Amino acid sequence: SRSLNLAVIPGDGIGQEVVAQGLKVLSAVLPQDVKLETKEYDFGAKRYHATGETLTDADAEALKQHDAILLGAIGDPSVPSGVLERGFLLKLRFLFDHHVNLRPSKLLPGVATPLAGEPQIDFVVVREGTEGPYTGNGGTIRKGTPQEVATEVSVNTAFGVERVVRDAFARAQARPRKKLALIHKNNVLTFAGHLWTNIFNKVAEEFPEVTTEYMHVDAATIYLVTQPERFDVIVTDNLFGDIITDLAAAVSGGIGVAASGNINPSGEFPSMFEPVHGSAPDIAGQGKADPSATVLSVALLLRHLGYEAEAARIEEAVSADLAERVGKPARSTEEIGDALVVRVAG
Amino acid sequence: SRSLNLAVIPGDGIGQEVVAQGLKVLSAVLPQDVKLETKEYDFGAKRYHATGETLTDADAEALKQHDAILLGAIGDPSVPSGVLERGFLLKLRFLFDHHVNLRPSKLLPGVATPLAGEPQIDFVVVREGTEGPYTGNGGTIRKGTPQEVATEVSVNTAFGVERVVRDAFARAQARPRKKLALIHKNNVLTFAGHLWTNIFNKVAEEFPEVTTEYMHVDAATIYLVTQPERFDVIVTDNLFGDIITDLAAAVSGGIGVAASGNINPSGEFPSMFEPVHGSAPDIAGQGKADPSATVLSVALLLRHLGYEAEAARIEEAVSADLAERVGKPARSTEEIGDALVVRVAG
Ligand SMILES: CC(C)[C@H](C(=O)O)[C@@H](O)C(=O)O
Ligand SMILES: CC(C)[C@H](C(=O)O)[C@@H](O)C(=O)O
Repeated sequence: SRSLNLAVIPGDGIGQEVVAQGLKVLSAVLPQDVKLETKEYDFGAKRYHATGETLTDADAEALKQHDAILLGAIGDPSVPSGVLERGFLLKLRFLFDHHVNLRPSKLLPGVATPLAGEPQIDFVVVREGTEGPYTGNGGTIRKGTPQEVATEVSVNTAFGVERVVRDAFARAQARPRKKLALIHKNNVLTFAGHLWTNIFNKVAEEFPEVTTEYMHVDAATIYLVTQPERFDVIVTDNLFGDIITDLAAAVSGGIGVAASGNINPSGEFPSMFEPVHGSAPDIAGQGKADPSATVLSVALLLRHLGYEAEAARIEEAVSADLAERVGKPARSTEEIGDALVVRVAG
Repeated sequence: SRSLNLAVIPGDGIGQEVVAQGLKVLSAVLPQDVKLETKEYDFGAKRYHATGETLTDADAEALKQHDAILLGAIGDPSVPSGVLERGFLLKLRFLFDHHVNLRPSKLLPGVATPLAGEPQIDFVVVREGTEGPYTGNGGTIRKGTPQEVATEVSVNTAFGVERVVRDAFARAQARPRKKLALIHKNNVLTFAGHLWTNIFNKVAEEFPEVTTEYMHVDAATIYLVTQPERFDVIVTDNLFGDIITDLAAAVSGGIGVAASGNINPSGEFPSMFEPVHGSAPDIAGQGKADPSATVLSVALLLRHLGYEAEAARIEEAVSADLAERVGKPARSTEEIGDALVVRVAG
């Protein structure tokens, strides 16, 4: 008999509520013979205030014992900006070498978009997760004086770029349209731009069936609102990926339905799955949060672990649920979770 | 009698066509007693191919003699990416200390937007123009090998940040809504983010009437498509400014109408005004390019030199012309220019 040993990090704000629904749906969809074990971890603002800790070495060791991690949301206005981001979220991505940050964008039937017309949106962004301007390199001199100088260093390696580019080509190859766009700013960031572009062109030779294009990040934001149907798979740098995936989420139904995976493709360390949205402290505890993004993150988790049919069932359930909402009164977080349980079980 | 001594750089692709219309409108709107002198410069792809030069010391000296610079567009697929950008456009911004990169976004009546509904868009982005990841700092080791490492260094100084933040506060103070948003990514880029946030908060104390907010760049892209009316003045870093102004242009009618100024507020060196769009080689020479963005850049140029009434006349003319287009057959570049000449003169 099989087992799935899951680390659960509800986190802050609405994290608790949405993760509860994600787990309900996960239990309902898993085949009978799979034994689901979950262990909850208390990372986030409360733990930080109580102990000053964000993620200790012992925590990291404990997390490594799991098959995968499901996270709700981390962050609270009571914690200074950067502390939980650098001390927990990014620390985990680096420790567990989550170099493939996967963010699908699909505009589902019935879901509202801020764009006019009826755009067809169905693409996936492969964002590099362990390099670029996210490495924490840089520093400050003469802090607080009129002569202060602060630097941020974007670090890009052939090793890091090639593995994520290769992953993106493989994903493009597996999709019907087989298109891959590299997004960078190689006309200004010429050192990193040259590295990305060269490796992209080199790997492209191994995937002759994949149609490629290059686009500057500024131009990409234009296309994302004027021709989003143009995109199939996008591969990009850590920071550009951060920016364009929020925009992509906004045009394809909002962060209420945007899922993501922080993936270690080799399986050396567990991958982590989380909604793109934050902890939304303004609506926390009110049962107003939409758990769809978390439930869709559970689907990404299942697909990553090889449960393709179960992942697809969840995606169909969420899609059908969203389509049914049109014109109906809003339901609570729990009601949506219950409806999804019925659908995936049925 | 007064004079306006203008450097004109038509540049590549559609640059020639749109600049010609900009100059026609400028001549028509200038008061009789102002003597307009123009000198054309041949920078761009043709000059580069003929001589290998992008901008020599002698060129820079010549440009310094002018009151302002009007540029069409620079760039051509025949020139390797980065050569004209770094060798001409960015070189000029750095040489002439164009630290205020001004990019207004206004959705004019009758102009199509990719957003649903009828969004009210009227804000201006003050983008820093001489620091950040645009300084060319960084480098590559082991180029072309599997051990290549490429870095890009974002350089931020208290001097550079304070002067642009101060400029943005003054602009916000002068507008009816008096709102200013700082856009950065201070939860990840903590060194530069700390510098920007601290200086922003410090200068804010001198402008008690201005309402301020802070927003991460990823969240800002969401608001730009879901609540663009929220923005009045935005101040941001060079790279974030590059990205969000293209998005801002897209939602407020497209780069066909987006104007910009690369401003040296002290007047030590001439400021440069240019449409946000590129050289569009695919439609060059066909009379299809919309000269509105260039004509609106002429308005920014006039306002910068103190011709406020004339600037306003141009903006009204463009606005009226755009409103009249709805449902009519497309006009040529020259026809639009002629119509604007009639309006500003009348
Ligand atoms: C919270 C922050 C560190 C994070 C990022 O910048 O990657 C978030 O914006 C995201 O996209 O997952
Ligand atoms: C052409 C390029 C160097 C430039 C920039 O990145 O600043 C352009 O995109 C712009 O916004 O003016």
